[in-house]
Amino acid sequence: MSKDLIQPRTLKGFRDYLPDVMIVREQLMETARRVYRSYGFSPIDTPALEYAEILVGKGGDESDKQLFRFIDHGDRDVALRFDLTVPFARFAAEHLNEIGTPFKRYHIAPVWRGENTQRGRFREFVQCDFDTIGTDSNVSDIETLMVIHDLMQAIGFDGFTIRVNHRMLLNGVLEELGVADKSVGLLRALDKVLKIGREAVIAEMVDKVGVNAEQAAGVLDFASLRGSNLEILDMAEKLVGTNERGLEGSARLRQLLNACEMAGLKSERISLDLSIARGLDYYTGTIYETFLTALPGIGSVCSGGRYDNLAGLFTKTPLPGVGASLGLDRLLAAMEELKLVSKVSTPAPVIIIHFDKDRAAEYLRMGRVLRAAGIGTEVYALPKPMKKQMQYADAKGFRYALIAGSNEFDKGCWMLKDLAKQEQQEVSEAELIETLQQLLG
Amino acid sequence: MSKDLIQPRTLKGFRDYLPDVMIVREQLMETARRVYRSYGFSPIDTPALEYAEILVGKGGDESDKQLFRFIDHGDRDVALRFDLTVPFARFAAEHLNEIGTPFKRYHIAPVWRGENTQRGRFREFVQCDFDTIGTDSNVSDIETLMVIHDLMQAIGFDGFTIRVNHRMLLNGVLEELGVADKSVGLLRALDKVLKIGREAVIAEMVDKVGVNAEQAAGVLDFASLRGSNLEILDMAEKLVGTNERGLEGSARLRQLLNACEMAGLKSERISLDLSIARGLDYYTGTIYETFLTALPGIGSVCSGGRYDNLAGLFTKTPLPGVGASLGLDRLLAAMEELKLVSKVSTPAPVIIIHFDKDRAAEYLRMGRVLRAAGIGTEVYALPKPMKKQMQYADAKGFRYALIAGSNEFDKGCWMLKDLAKQEQQEVSEAELIETLQQLLG
Repeated sequence: MSKDLIQPRTLKGFRDYLPDVMIVREQLMETARRVYRSYGFSPIDTPALEYAEILVGKGGDESDKQLFRFIDHGDRDVALRFDLTVPFARFAAEHLNEIGTPFKRYHIAPVWRGENTQRGRFREFVQCDFDTIGTDSNVSDIETLMVIHDLMQAIGFDGFTIRVNHRMLLNGVLEELGVADKSVGLLRALDKVLKIGREAVIAEMVDKVGVNAEQAAGVLDFASLRGSNLEILDMAEKLVGTNERGLEGSARLRQLLNACEMAGLKSERISLDLSIARGLDYYTGTIYETFLTALPGIGSVCSGGRYDNLAGLFTKTPLPGVGASLGLDRLLAAMEELKLVSKVSTPAPVIIIHFDKDRAAEYLRMGRVLRAAGIGTEVYALPKPMKKQMQYADAKGFRYALIAGSNEFDKGCWMLKDLAKQEQQEVSEAELIETLQQLLG
Repeated sequence: MSKDLIQPRTLKGFRDYLPDVMIVREQLMETARRVYRSYGFSPIDTPALEYAEILVGKGGDESDKQLFRFIDHGDRDVALRFDLTVPFARFAAEHLNEIGTPFKRYHIAPVWRGENTQRGRFREFVQCDFDTIGTDSNVSDIETLMVIHDLMQAIGFDGFTIRVNHRMLLNGVLEELGVADKSVGLLRALDKVLKIGREAVIAEMVDKVGVNAEQAAGVLDFASLRGSNLEILDMAEKLVGTNERGLEGSARLRQLLNACEMAGLKSERISLDLSIARGLDYYTGTIYETFLTALPGIGSVCSGGRYDNLAGLFTKTPLPGVGASLGLDRLLAAMEELKLVSKVSTPAPVIIIHFDKDRAAEYLRMGRVLRAAGIGTEVYALPKPMKKQMQYADAKGFRYALIAGSNEFDKGCWMLKDLAKQEQQEVSEAELIETLQQLLG
C-alpha cells in the first residue's frame, strides 16, 4: 500500500455486499415485501438515529443492547437503532391518531449492534419485521403464522417447520404446579434442554430456581409432550386442568390449528412444541420459530410472538400486538450452505457485444428495444476484442449474447449465442424478441 | 405527557414515513431498481458506518460534509456515510480484482448529513445512484442519459427535460479565450446567471475572478447559445475553433445526440445547455441535469456526470466513470405538489369483513385463496360492528370489501362491495377470483 493512499477497508464487524450476494438479498427483501403486502401490511420507515433515551428506555440495561451511542453536534445524546421494535413502539405512540388500530406494518431496514464479532455476528444487519398492533384477536396470531408460512414458500423452501407454542398454556401449567412466580428462571432453564439434557435442566431448576424435583419434572414432562399436534394439545389440556389462563391458551392454539388446516396449510409444516419459550421477558401469547428441514442447526430463520403492550414506555394506550421477523442474513447463510444461491453477478440475462466500433448507436438502440419488451440487456461499453467481451459475459453470468457486424446488419439479423451451451443461431431482428422471450421462459 | 412516560419524538432533521408516503417511496425505489437492472447495473451495499478517514479523505474539508462522527467502543474514529460515492470509491479499490471492469453498479441506501434544517433539508435521506466505472467510452455516457430518460418515464413523467453539457467543450472554449486557469471561479459565477443576470455575472467575473470584460462576455456568449441542439453544437464548435479538447467534447455530444435519436428518444426531452456547470470540482466530461416541465423550480431531480478518476484516494488504478443519482425525496416532494400521489395507506386492494365471529377460519381461508391468485387481501382482525370495519376500509383506501354471513355461506357466494361507488353485487365463490381480477384490471 503506497504511503500516498488511504487503505480501503471496512470496520470490524461490517461488510460490503458484492453483486452476486446482493442480488439474492434484494430478491429476499422483495419477496418479503410482496408477501407482507399481500396480507395488507403497510410499509413504514423510521430514522436510523434516535434519542438514546428512546432506545434505552427507563432503567433499560444498555449493555444488553450494545448501542452505537454518541453526542451529536447539537449536543444531543443519540444512538443508532439496535432493532426495529423499539422505534416502532415510539412511532406507534407518536402517530397513534393518524394510524388508528388495528395497524399492520412491515419495516425492512438495517439495525446496528456493537456485538462481539467472534461468533460470526455482524454489527450491521437487516431486519424484516411485520406486526399487527391494537388488537388481541387470535385472527392476527393465525395470520402471523400464515405469513411466515407463505413467506418461506415464496422464498422457495419446501421443507420447513414452524414451531408454535403459547405462553398462556405454559403459564397455566406453571400455575397448576405452583411455580408461576418462578417462570422466568424455569423457562430460561427449559430453553437449554436440547443443549444440556433433561437431568441437567432439572438440577438447574432445583438448585438455581428453587423449585422441588417434582415440580421441575412436571415442567419438563409438559415441555416434552410428543405426538400429533392435536394429541399434544389434548395431553396439555389435561395437565392444565381447570386453569383458566391455560385453557384460554389451548383454545387459541386449537383455533389456530383448525384455521390452518381449513386454509390448506400442510399439517407437517406446523409443529406444536411446548418446549419453546423464546423471548420470555417479552412474549405473552403465541410464540413462533421456523426451522429449515435441511439445516435445522442454523436455528430459527423467522421468529416472533404475541406481546401484551408494545409501547408502554411512550403511551398509556395499551397496544397489544403480534408479529415476527425474518432473519435475512441467517437465511442467506443457510441458502448459501444449501447451494440455493447461484453465482450470478448481473441482473440482466442478455449482453450485446460491442463488435463494430462504428455501430455503437445500433447496439444502444437494440438494447432499448429489448428492454421495452421486458428483457434486461447490457450493451458492452467498448469495442474490445471479442474474447475479452465473452470472458466478461461468462464471469458475470449472462445467459445470452447478441452479436452483429456488417454482415448481420446487411441481412437485418443478429447472431444469438447461448453462453451456457456455447451454441449460436442467426435470428432475424423481427423474430428476436419472441425468440429471446421463449428462451428466457 | 405523563411524568412516567418517555416523550415519543424524533431528532430534529429526521422524520418517520407513514404508510401513504412510504408506499410511494417504495414504488419509486422499485422502479429505479427495475430500470437500473434492465441496463445490467448490479446492486451492491456498503456499511452505513465507515472509518472517518475514508469518508473525510486526506485534507478533506470535513465541515463541508457535516459528518455524524464519533469514537466507537473499539476506540475507532468512525462516521456515518454522507453520500454513496465515497463508499463506492473505497469499495471499488478494495474489491477491484473481484469486480473487474467495466463495472456497473447501483446503490440505493440512506445517507446522513448534519445539515442546517432551516431550508427544509433533512439529515437522513435516500440516494439512488448508478455508475459505470473503468471505462471512458462514450457509450456509457450515452447509456447514462438513456437510463435517466427511461427512469423518468417509468416513474410516470411525460414532461421532463434532461439538460446536457460537456466539460471538455466548456474547457475548450475557456482555453480559446485564454482563461482556462480561472475555470473554477468562472464556472461558479456562471452558475448564478439565472439568479443574478448577465451583467452581474460579468461584473463578478471581472472583479472577483480577474478576467477582462471581453473574456467574461465570451464565456457568457458561449453559455447563452440557443437554438436546436444541433444548432447550438454547430455554433459552439465555431467558438472552440481548433481546440482539441473542445472538439473532443463536441464530438462526444454529437454522438450522444445521434444515438438518442436513433434509439427513439423524443428530441425535446434532451436539451443541450452550455450554461450548466454543476459539480465543477468533480465532473470532467458529460454533465446531466433533469427538470420537470410542470415544476422546474424544484431543481434537478436526477443529476450526474462523467469523472476522470473515482478512487484516487484509495488506489493507483485509474477508474474513470460516469453516473447519476435520482433525488428520491425531491422527486417525491414534486409528485406531492403535482398531486400525483394518492393517499392510500394499504398495499392490498381487498378487505374481507369480519362479519360473523364464528367464521374467522372461513375468512382466513378465502384470504389465502385470493392471495394465491395474486390479489392482495386483508382479513379484518376482529368482529367489530360493520360500520367500524367500513370506516377502517375507507380510511385506508381499500377498493373492494368482501362480506359473507350464514346466508352467503349457505349459497356459496360472497357480497362484493365497490367502496368508491358504494355498490355491491353477489358473486359466487367460483367466479370471485375472475370477477376481482377484472375489476382490478
